[in-house]
Amino acid sequence: MSAVYGAIEAGGTKFVCAVAVSPGPDLVTKQIIPTTTPDQTLGKAIEFFRGHPVVALGIACFGPLDLGRGRIGATPKMGWVGAEVVRPFREALGVPIRFETDVNGAALGEARHGAGRGMDPLVYVTVGTGIGVGVLISGRPVHGMMHPEAGHLFVKRHVDDSFHGSCPYHGDCLEGMASGPAIEARWGSPAPALPAGHPAWELEAYYLSQAMCDLIYVVSPRRIVLGGGVMNHEGLLARIRAGTQALLADYVQPLASPRILDDLIVPAALGDNAGIVGALELAFEAAGG
Amino acid sequence: MSAVYGAIEAGGTKFVCAVAVSPGPDLVTKQIIPTTTPDQTLGKAIEFFRGHPVVALGIACFGPLDLGRGRIGATPKMGWVGAEVVRPFREALGVPIRFETDVNGAALGEARHGAGRGMDPLVYVTVGTGIGVGVLISGRPVHGMMHPEAGHLFVKRHVDDSFHGSCPYHGDCLEGMASGPAIEARWGSPAPALPAGHPAWELEAYYLSQAMCDLIYVVSPRRIVLGGGVMNHEGLLARIRAGTQALLADYVQPLASPRILDDLIVPAALGDNAGIVGALELAFEAAGG
Repeated sequence: MSAVYGAIEAGGTKFVCAVAVSPGPDLVTKQIIPTTTPDQTLGKAIEFFRGHPVVALGIACFGPLDLGRGRIGATPKMGWVGAEVVRPFREALGVPIRFETDVNGAALGEARHGAGRGMDPLVYVTVGTGIGVGVLISGRPVHGMMHPEAGHLFVKRHVDDSFHGSCPYHGDCLEGMASGPAIEARWGSPAPALPAGHPAWELEAYYLSQAMCDLIYVVSPRRIVLGGGVMNHEGLLARIRAGTQALLADYVQPLASPRILDDLIVPAALGDNAGIVGALELAFEAAGG
Repeated sequence: MSAVYGAIEAGGTKFVCAVAVSPGPDLVTKQIIPTTTPDQTLGKAIEFFRGHPVVALGIACFGPLDLGRGRIGATPKMGWVGAEVVRPFREALGVPIRFETDVNGAALGEARHGAGRGMDPLVYVTVGTGIGVGVLISGRPVHGMMHPEAGHLFVKRHVDDSFHGSCPYHGDCLEGMASGPAIEARWGSPAPALPAGHPAWELEAYYLSQAMCDLIYVVSPRRIVLGGGVMNHEGLLARIRAGTQALLADYVQPLASPRILDDLIVPAALGDNAGIVGALELAFEAAGG
């Protein structure tokens, strides 16, 4: 009998719990638990894993996180500030656990089974309700004093944009100018309702292109994988590639060709599965595999 | 007899060549060669090492660089675009060579013998004629498609600042707004001539604080070491710490205390020696030490 590994993609609206016997998107089974209170949500997840015993568990969790202590930090999600995540599972299941940010989890998924295979450094960016960034160097998620929070990069304001920005902390940071809620607050319509010719997309590409440049300038990735709901807009990726090239202004010579940017900045390959596939990778690592 | 290791800090105005028997700032001897043409400059450096035979050589070089090919990229330095740096030394000396950017070299020096000891990730920022950034993760310089060029991060313009920016590529990027030449172009006086109460320093701290935040957001360093001539201005470091704290706006909880920022953002300890000490580290690595 093969060993069974457990994975949780712990999000602000749902917890995806899954078990698998091998790395990748082929799961033995999964269950979706709505995110309510910590006690209730973690309780149901523990129940799931009691019914499907695993040798190790990987958790890719919404944040910000206190990774060392295995708990959630200053999240806007009601009732979850300071919530213990790792301890309840450790106490209930008694198996090794690895705990990561949701975006580092998705980055691991894309790195090992999706659009980032063989690419080092690898950056994963999700553009949706928030903007999240995972960074892998030598295949490992980057941490330090905390974990990356590059959704909050500073951006240069577009000359035609007077929107104050929607980030409750920083106003007009990247997330404040380019997340889904920022688009909706600026234009009065959610992103999916804005047609291709709408000026929203020029601004969106402008801010995300700055983020591409900043990420290139700091970690010199070999690939940047873009996911999240806002990226579903057709044509946005092409605009970001073109915008990035324009903003780099031929300064970074190895990137001074459109073909190279097409290979550098790519869409996510695993879609909604990136997080759970990455969490499963964490379980294999926790097991020492 | 101890093995002797060679180091070059290859700058746009001078090449510092040194030999040493052990890591750190205690050099056996050094020689300063003015940077003229590649042939002349590299020729004199080779001559120096012929007189002081070494078992390995580390080179920390001005750039941008093509690290894989061991040569210089699109530098504004006349006569040096595409110049081969590693090959002439390899052919003349026949020893293993490690080649890095000047800022990654300085980062290595500070990481192992200066203000960054034991800190991972470590970021080194120099603010002078340009703004350069070196990033070490797990003690290794970060590279990918190229090497970091985080002097060119985008910044949010200060509301009182109408300066167009001095970067020939990007105009008002970080380097274009906050390098020594940017300060001089904006105010008509070089940075050292501007007194403590001058408004220049508020702008300078504002832009460098944004860079601190961006670097924190992307690589979550445990330490950022600040060096370079502009940082010699008394009081600038304190302004940057305060500005960083204000701009983070308590978003990054582990940093939400002035004491922690005092420990995170620190002045360089090796001063002008960081580069040559780092180049020497490269030599030890090249020798397999």
